[in-house]
Order: sequence, then structure tokens, then C-alpha cells
Amino acid sequence: MKTIQAGTYNVHFQQKAYKFLSNLVEDNNYSSVFILLDENTLEHCYPKFISNFATEKRIEVIEIESGEINKNIDTCIGVWNAITELGGDRKSLLITLGGGVITDLGGFVASCFKRGIDFVNIPTTLLSMVDASVGGKTGVDLGVLKNQIGLFANPKMVIVDSDYLTTVTEREIKSGTAEIIKYGLTYDTDLFNEIKNNKKLEISNLIQRSIEIKNEVVLQDPKEQNLRKILNFGHTLGHAIESFYLESEDKENLTHGEAIAIGMVCESFMSYKLLGFPAEKVNEIKEVILSIYKRTHLLKEDFSDIMELLKHDKKNINGQVNFVLLNDYEDYKIDCKVPEKLILESMEFYNE
Amino acid sequence: MKTIQAGTYNVHFQQKAYKFLSNLVEDNNYSSVFILLDENTLEHCYPKFISNFATEKRIEVIEIESGEINKNIDTCIGVWNAITELGGDRKSLLITLGGGVITDLGGFVASCFKRGIDFVNIPTTLLSMVDASVGGKTGVDLGVLKNQIGLFANPKMVIVDSDYLTTVTEREIKSGTAEIIKYGLTYDTDLFNEIKNNKKLEISNLIQRSIEIKNEVVLQDPKEQNLRKILNFGHTLGHAIESFYLESEDKENLTHGEAIAIGMVCESFMSYKLLGFPAEKVNEIKEVILSIYKRTHLLKEDFSDIMELLKHDKKNINGQVNFVLLNDYEDYKIDCKVPEKLILESMEFYNE
Repeated sequence: MKTIQAGTYNVHFQQKAYKFLSNLVEDNNYSSVFILLDENTLEHCYPKFISNFATEKRIEVIEIESGEINKNIDTCIGVWNAITELGGDRKSLLITLGGGVITDLGGFVASCFKRGIDFVNIPTTLLSMVDASVGGKTGVDLGVLKNQIGLFANPKMVIVDSDYLTTVTEREIKSGTAEIIKYGLTYDTDLFNEIKNNKKLEISNLIQRSIEIKNEVVLQDPKEQNLRKILNFGHTLGHAIESFYLESEDKENLTHGEAIAIGMVCESFMSYKLLGFPAEKVNEIKEVILSIYKRTHLLKEDFSDIMELLKHDKKNINGQVNFVLLNDYEDYKIDCKVPEKLILESMEFYNE
Repeated sequence: MKTIQAGTYNVHFQQKAYKFLSNLVEDNNYSSVFILLDENTLEHCYPKFISNFATEKRIEVIEIESGEINKNIDTCIGVWNAITELGGDRKSLLITLGGGVITDLGGFVASCFKRGIDFVNIPTTLLSMVDASVGGKTGVDLGVLKNQIGLFANPKMVIVDSDYLTTVTEREIKSGTAEIIKYGLTYDTDLFNEIKNNKKLEISNLIQRSIEIKNEVVLQDPKEQNLRKILNFGHTLGHAIESFYLESEDKENLTHGEAIAIGMVCESFMSYKLLGFPAEKVNEIKEVILSIYKRTHLLKEDFSDIMELLKHDKKNINGQVNFVLLNDYEDYKIDCKVPEKLILESMEFYNE
């Protein structure tokens, strides 16, 4: 598969990517290489990685606990202390090996350590491959507020190797699929149709296409002034729902994709009501999503908490929630204000 | 006094600066304005500031506790939570009003909040005026390691108003003077001579000249590849000494300037031994510094702890400490490796 040029760095695919990494480390003469991972990727991904990564540099492994609950500043402090104690300096390289928690947190840790060291991302979940490989977003959560603290910072390289997906669960694959559906709905109807028609999908092609789309979007609008906002489709309400389930101790957490899938159904419904997005397409989206994700029954008594969380969405200005909605497939409208009543109605539509 | 153009932003001086700030807030249509300060600047500087700052925007004051000991990530978390609870969004502006702890920490807080909001610095101490007004360094300490976590990020504007200096102690003025001496030794001998000859100095002129020098240096070398390293003169050993006194509970802390002054005497001595920097100039520097700062007797039994802290200096590569030393006044050499024995000897020279 073809290398993707993402502005200042490249996304390399599959086996040949490791050679590029070894060259990068050689060419930059790093003083040491730190690998950030969690207990899962240490067990399932690190052996493959290390057998492919040829270097004579000192390698230090830093393990953090897996899970969104650990994507916070306290974990960052732990990693910063570990790098410090292991003698990390400005010429150190940090390689992240894991899902979105590891790549997002690792990019942030690297960008702030001694005012910035280089980092390389190796996403090992479908979600982090299709969502976090390009775009330069790094960060951690503040309490239940997702990615509230972070930066735009680009890695030196990204390696996407779909072999790692053999180590993740079916549920995680579905979580990543939600982002692919999003790219399809907002940018490439063919891609959506492929998923809808449930052909025997070649996952590595879907990944490549998704990264290409995100890269096109991000290169056109790196700072999220306009086009890039399509990447938030389904995410405005979806993030609030995800945060709500994360902070509700008596409820099982949703994966990011499960929450975003709900968000896409709801925001399609808002699009229909506000912008005349065709009703049959709303139903089509709902049907495709419910064929993949078990319906989560959103309780009416929880709606007010979810609305409260919406108020902290990063895209809000002056307390106004800003949605990106669809006029049609591949045709979006940014900065839509949605009446609270309609937001509630959209969740009921999802429940029906 | 003339406005200084510092790359993407301006440093405005004295009374007229507040008009520029009001215009900035108006032109950018910020959703709200947060003022970060500590109990001292709330009492002594905020009244002047607020009486000069004309805006119709909502203003929220966030107070943190003063002192280097609070320049850490925990304080950042508190400020991020406060901004969140007060409804801060991506179009909020953060104004810092205080010394280096406030401006460094505030710039970091702003740069990481929702991946970056605008900030304006209003330094209120001599040290922060001459050191932190330009250069874009933001950050906080990690344990006793100074500025270990941070970023390069530029404010939208800096206001330097020497009226605020009437609110600070003589000891703080001396702390800032150390940085002015540094600019003199490395870049402008006339400036050093002004201080040496102890003329009745017009402080606002010294500030303006210092900022001009730092600005020239930073614009030529923003990422500290070469010339900018002169700004570290006295700081390599100085930071280690400062950290050591900060972590020693039974010793009184040194101000930044007091520590850097010691560092400059020691590093002048290293320059003499390694690069042939003239002995009479070493003595001249020592004399000037001891005429301003009471000598701190560095105990031999503390030397090993100080050496240990040196190993975490941000400029180190591969465990090697990198000093910037002087061939002569205004003539520097970067990346000097200094034998441990000579570092110890230099502290003894200071003690003599």
C-alpha cells in the first residue's frame, strides 16, 4: 500500500514501514528511544514490533494502564517522571504503540517534555488507525471531559500495520468502523455503501481510504476553521453520551465508536429536521448502524445530564453548542445551532 | 517607549499599552476574558490593571497561590477546571498578570486548553519583564526540575508597565537584574558597564534594552539551535543550584536571579579555564555580582546533590551537560563539555 504524505510527515503501511522507522532513528541520531504502551500492547503487539525494529539505540519501555479512564494528566505526570528517571533528554524519541489513549496521550507527553521531543505513532486498533494517524491532535481528558487538554502536534512518522488488528476484539473493530462510516457519510458515499452492502470488506483497503480522506480534509483545513469540522459529525452529541456513560458508575461504558454511532443517528435526524436532509437517508443510516451496533437504550432521566455535558463541547462558543450537520451525503453545514428540544427529540428517535 | 515587534505579536509599553489590549479584545470578539493572578498581584496590580482595561466582555478572575513551589501541573489542573467551570471556550482569552510563575504557567495552561486559546502576558516583576516578555517559552516544573514540562507558544500581546515594579521587593528587583547582567555579558558590554558603574539607572530603559536584546536573539534563533543558547549563560549550573535550594527544606530558597548570579560567576570561571576568557573579567564579574547579591556559601557536602540535578538540565544530550561559555564579552561558545572537577572548582571559586 502507498505511503501517505501528511504534511510534514509520512504514514507508512505494513511490513515495509519498519525499515523507514529504523532509518528515521538512524538519521536523527536520537540519544535514546522510549516505547509507550499498555499491558495489552506489551503482550500482544510489542513482540512483533521489536522483532521488526532494527536499532542499536538504547530502548526503554514505559507501560501505563490501559483504558480511557487513564487518559488523564496524572498518567502524563507518571510518564514524564519515568522518562526523566530513565535519562530522557531533548534528543530522545518517543514511540507510541497502542490505541487512541496511548497515541493521543503519548503525543501530548512528547510535545510537552522539555518543550517538545519527537514522537512516532504506531496505532494498534482500528479506531486509532483511521482516526488518529493524521490530524495532529494530541491530548488527554480532564475529568470526564474528553480531550479537554491537548495540543496540535505532528509526529515524525506514523506506522499503520493492520496485522496488529488480529490482537483486538470484535467490539474494538466495530468501534473503529463508526469513524469509517463517518468518512463515508460526509465525504465519500461509495465508502458508506461498501459498509452498507456488507460486502466482504478488505480491512486494509478501508483503512487506507479512511486515512486518505482524513488527510485530504486536514491538509485543506488544519486548524478546523471549516471543512475539518465534518470530522465532528456524530461527535458533538456522541462525545457527551460517551462522557455520560464514562462517569456513570452503574452503567457499562460505551466504546467511542458505539457512542459516535448513536451521535450520527441523532445528528442525521437533526439534519433532517433543520436542513431537509432526506428522511429515507436518516432511516438508512439508522438501519446500517443498528445492524452493526446493539441499540443502547438512552434513558429519559439521563437526558439532562447528557445536555449538561454538551455544554462543555470544545466547539462551543459563548455557551452555544455548534453542530456540523448534513444537507445531503457529502454535503455539510457547519456551526448549526440546534434547539434543545430537537436534541432531546433526536435521542428519542434513536431509541424508537 | 517604542513598541517592540516580536515576530507574531507586539510588546507594548507603559500606559498606552492598555488601549492596544482593549482593541485586541474588541477585534477578536472573545467570548470571555480570564485573568490569572496570585494573591499578591490581585491586591497590588489588579486594581491598576482593571481601571485601565476597557472592555464590555465578561471578565473572570482566577487566583492561584504565589510561589515557585506552585508552578506545577497540579496548579494547571486547578486552573483548567476553573476555566471549564466558568464556561471558558475556544474563543476565550487568558490574561496573565504576575511574575514568571504566572506568565509561564498561564501561557502553558492557555496553550493546552481545548488545544489552545489566546493569551496575553502582563509581567509585573522585573524578572518576568526582561526574561519572559519575548521568546515564547511556557511551562511548569516537574518536582524540583524547573520548566521540565512546557511548550513554545507565543502570546497575542505583551504589556510591560514598569509602574507595577513599585509593588515588588528590592530582592525581586535584584533577581531581575541578574538577567540584565546576562544580556550585558553575552550581547552588549555597554549594558553591563552601566550596571557595573552603578549609575543612577533608569529602570524602564534597562527593561526596554533587555527586551530588545532578547528579541533580536530569539528572532534569529527561535528554536535554540545556536545563538539563543547565550540566554542560558549562568543558567546551567544556576538552575541546578536553584533547584537544590528549592528542594532543601532546611535552607532558605534563592531567587532565580540569585541562583543565576552564582551560575554566572561559576561559568565565567569555567570559561577562563577552558576557553581563555580573561581572568580579570572573571574577577570583574564576580565583584559586580557580589556587590549586588549577598554571597551564598555553597557547602561542599551539597556539591554532589547539585551535580546530580545538573544531569537533568534540559540542554543535556546523551547524559552530557552542555554549557554555553564565554570566549570574551559578547563572544560565546555553545555546547561546551565541562569536566566535573572543573564544575566543582568553579563553585569553590565562587565561595572564595
